[in-house]
Amino acid sequence: MIRPLTQDETRSLLMEGSVGRLGCIDNGAPYVVPISYVFHDDNIYVHSLVGRKIRALRKNSRACLQVDQIKDEYHWRSALAFGLYEEVTNEQERSWALRRLLSRFPQLTPVESVPVHDGQSSVIVFRVRIEETSGVGEG
Amino acid sequence: MIRPLTQDETRSLLMEGSVGRLGCIDNGAPYVVPISYVFHDDNIYVHSLVGRKIRALRKNSRACLQVDQIKDEYHWRSALAFGLYEEVTNEQERSWALRRLLSRFPQLTPVESVPVHDGQSSVIVFRVRIEETSGVGEG
Repeated sequence: MIRPLTQDETRSLLMEGSVGRLGCIDNGAPYVVPISYVFHDDNIYVHSLVGRKIRALRKNSRACLQVDQIKDEYHWRSALAFGLYEEVTNEQERSWALRRLLSRFPQLTPVESVPVHDGQSSVIVFRVRIEETSGVGEG
Repeated sequence: MIRPLTQDETRSLLMEGSVGRLGCIDNGAPYVVPISYVFHDDNIYVHSLVGRKIRALRKNSRACLQVDQIKDEYHWRSALAFGLYEEVTNEQERSWALRRLLSRFPQLTPVESVPVHDGQSSVIVFRVRIEETSGVGEG
């Protein structure tokens, strides 16, 4: 049967995961995309080129990140973190976040890793500052 | 580099998938949950107990389903289908959908398979009638 996860279980799922689905609202409709992320200190750090997701989040900063571990349809856990989108413009925090993302995802292409060094790039670094989490699981 | 998927690629991803992430809007905020689904004739069929997702969709029927195949962070495809939530109340369509879901997900518990036979249940069957799709991929 489906049961709520504890706060600790939910947090572990968010910390252990590296790929999640980011939900936002685009033009009044839900919009969901897979993202790679780093979870740190109640913030979810993501890097991205400017596209539909960034344009939507700049207009409506309400976001959620859904992270799951699915063995089969009756053995799974899913965590949700809700919060607000904030672009990281402070150069120190931005470099730190990009380095964390780079160390977690070593296949980052040169284009995407350039801004770590030159501070000039079309790559957006943003965080979702978590306000609330919830989780459910089964099996 | 990230590229748009063709209509055919997007459709294949939706048809081949069996688990997706359903996005909806709950109280003005995005809400995302993993679901098992069957894709048929431009509709996404899902069964569910009444919970936060169903309550949210009854208030705001705008929904999306995100389905992906992720090999690693630089080899992935993601499809999105947008549409409206509709509860399936016609007994014939409901039975048909539950049978399709049951044959695709044979581990459906007895409780969940009961309504196929008796027509009485708290299990909701709904569909998202697809209005628009899009897809992106990399690698």
